Amino acid sequence: MNETHDPHLECWVRSAHAADTDFPIQNLPFGIFRRSHSDDEPRAGVAIGDQILDVTTWLSEGLFDGAAAEAAARCALPTLNALMALGNEAASSLRRGIVGLLRSDGIGYENFKRLGDACLTPMKGAQLYAPVQIGDYTDFYASVYHATNVGSMFRPDNPLLPNYKFVPIGYHGRASSIVVSGTDIVRPSGQTKDSKSETPSFGSTRMLDYESELGIFVGRGNSLGAPISIQRAPDHIFGFCLVNDWSARDIQAWEYQPLGPFLAKNFATSVSPWVITSEAIEPFRAPAFVRPAADPTPLSYLDAPTDREKGSIQLFLEVWLQSGMMREQNIPATKLSRTAFGSMYWTPAQLLTHHASNGCNLRTGDLLGSGTISGESKTERGCLLELTWKGAEPLLLPTGEERRFLEDGDEVIMRGYCEREGYARIGFGDCGGMVLPSKEI
Amino acid sequence: MNETHDPHLECWVRSAHAADTDFPIQNLPFGIFRRSHSDDEPRAGVAIGDQILDVTTWLSEGLFDGAAAEAAARCALPTLNALMALGNEAASSLRRGIVGLLRSDGIGYENFKRLGDACLTPMKGAQLYAPVQIGDYTDFYASVYHATNVGSMFRPDNPLLPNYKFVPIGYHGRASSIVVSGTDIVRPSGQTKDSKSETPSFGSTRMLDYESELGIFVGRGNSLGAPISIQRAPDHIFGFCLVNDWSARDIQAWEYQPLGPFLAKNFATSVSPWVITSEAIEPFRAPAFVRPAADPTPLSYLDAPTDREKGSIQLFLEVWLQSGMMREQNIPATKLSRTAFGSMYWTPAQLLTHHASNGCNLRTGDLLGSGTISGESKTERGCLLELTWKGAEPLLLPTGEERRFLEDGDEVIMRGYCEREGYARIGFGDCGGMVLPSKEI
Repeated sequence: MNETHDPHLECWVRSAHAADTDFPIQNLPFGIFRRSHSDDEPRAGVAIGDQILDVTTWLSEGLFDGAAAEAAARCALPTLNALMALGNEAASSLRRGIVGLLRSDGIGYENFKRLGDACLTPMKGAQLYAPVQIGDYTDFYASVYHATNVGSMFRPDNPLLPNYKFVPIGYHGRASSIVVSGTDIVRPSGQTKDSKSETPSFGSTRMLDYESELGIFVGRGNSLGAPISIQRAPDHIFGFCLVNDWSARDIQAWEYQPLGPFLAKNFATSVSPWVITSEAIEPFRAPAFVRPAADPTPLSYLDAPTDREKGSIQLFLEVWLQSGMMREQNIPATKLSRTAFGSMYWTPAQLLTHHASNGCNLRTGDLLGSGTISGESKTERGCLLELTWKGAEPLLLPTGEERRFLEDGDEVIMRGYCEREGYARIGFGDCGGMVLPSKEI
Repeated sequence: MNETHDPHLECWVRSAHAADTDFPIQNLPFGIFRRSHSDDEPRAGVAIGDQILDVTTWLSEGLFDGAAAEAAARCALPTLNALMALGNEAASSLRRGIVGLLRSDGIGYENFKRLGDACLTPMKGAQLYAPVQIGDYTDFYASVYHATNVGSMFRPDNPLLPNYKFVPIGYHGRASSIVVSGTDIVRPSGQTKDSKSETPSFGSTRMLDYESELGIFVGRGNSLGAPISIQRAPDHIFGFCLVNDWSARDIQAWEYQPLGPFLAKNFATSVSPWVITSEAIEPFRAPAFVRPAADPTPLSYLDAPTDREKGSIQLFLEVWLQSGMMREQNIPATKLSRTAFGSMYWTPAQLLTHHASNGCNLRTGDLLGSGTISGESKTERGCLLELTWKGAEPLLLPTGEERRFLEDGDEVIMRGYCEREGYARIGFGDCGGMVLPSKEI
């Protein structure tokens, strides 16, 4: 077993042993932070319990060697891109170095007593930033349950299009409007047309929705014209985050034909602040979705025994909601859904390989969204469009309020975690955002 | 009249007076260049006749003052973004300064005699680069003739969808694979399915096409959540280039539903190397497309008297092709089409305002493609899909070869120019690319 996966590994940061922490020593995700009320520039840190380890400080104290030191030297920057560009082996060296510092029998604690807050800072005293400069953002549509549900609302006779089981359907999203968890979301305006009107009108969306997705960050890229085989795809995946692909369903319905979603999606996309590395995810790799016997085998460029055996992830995603009224009444957020990523029709490697199969160049820091993660049952639906069946079946909140779509003041919080017998549970940290009223154009 | 538009302005660079030059003193577009066989870093220059003016050299000689000097100081960089971020007034100051140096009665010639190649270098001795670092690339679909032609091939009963005359239809493209004119294009592979087969197969595209478009570069951006009114849109448009949105029609047909084109487009997009400023275009502003009486009026956020009167551009676009056999036989490229940009259903300002109408933030350097520019007649069709009507009506080349779609070795060259009585003709420079055979995955 890789030392960094050892569930018995003990750590001198007490909060890393809390039962509900997302960040035990087996996780060690990377993010970009700054101590609040300090003159620090944003730089890379590693989440441990309720603390952030400042890689740059530990490096300047001479506590990393060799490849770990080389990787740590990329951590004094305001994005993770330079670290990610080094590839997964470099991140792995740095993680081993950090484990050496944080483990109970390591030398880190002595240094912490000396350096204090300069090397380990409480999360609640820090500001987190978008961890990666994202060049291109691509959004896939990899849940067959989501595609079937949405398709059956818009095309009852023909819910799943003939290409779905052959092509990992995806489209390009907007990189400029990707924001980090905690950023408020202004309700967008746009053209909508209801079935009763002859012509569309311009105004605030009345069908604001979230979409719960997994984000896949590209580490090493590929050159233009040079595809990535399915066997090599894992080498190009640096890590993962949670994604909320906010959507305005009424704008989407009117604009999306024939070229796909545009303004219905590009007003904001939230990402969680911590990048969970491929190495931390490794113990939770799981078999790809088992296709029903009647389904076609993937074309050979998307098919590899290694990917079939360990291409997916034993990962669970939850969506929570707290309305403004709930907040006023001190009622905690309520859980709307819980889904398993393992139900996705395509694996991360298949998405990445398909993306580069025409020679399209992926660059370090590019983000691939999985598409809304929905499972077979009603409680596993990853957006309100599905949960309320386009508003026909409203949800009841603890205050007695109903929800068809999001209202101003609603806060949506996404959570994700990997669990497996014999391993420490690791989590992603929250991906949250609150809806603000729209502005006048 | 703005001095920089004066058609009688004379210039000491002789080639700027050639009848067929794209770059008279009234144009002065910005690009990024490097003297071939030099140790220079790529930096900004201005095209004049068959020469490139090295802004940085003239600045270091103290030949720019005030706002012009401030703008010139942004020209020592490998992209135009820093200059563009200053806004159109700054570029205008710099252009006036350059006119002062290049005009026959100006002080530039004395300096040129002294500095020679260091201040003015022949284009043929220089390498040109992609002029702008493009954060996000959006492709529109603003030609009603193109939309109708393509629609009638794929949906004969319903060529133009009900949203077309209300919504400036657009979608996100891929920024990473944008290349500068002169870059070879590797024929992409992908999934295709012909009507005779039950299942798709993976292989080289057999329907490779070009699309002739105008590119619109964003200068000053807007903040997330802050739309741009149609009245202010021109302030955010720094300039224009030519765009070839290479397309694989067989991949597109199979993959594009329901989320739009993806791998059919993102393997390469070519841009011309010179950015023609909004100021240089100003004399050629033209009324927006006159909508037939039966067409709806644009919704108010897309409608302004100034835009109706001067929102379009009197600009003509040509596509030329030279096959490998033509090259071997020394037969020059043959013209496939000539189109007027004025036939576009939406103006650049409408595209930009629509894009930001939901609060989407546009950033300095973002590229908006107009979509394929096709006119009403057959000779005005801006892609082979339309010109050969999906391959049914092949073109005959001077060698006797037929073309339904592009073959390996074909070079596609796009040209564009603005012409108007009483003004000097200004051109865009070529946007070319040659098709190379596909590679194995």
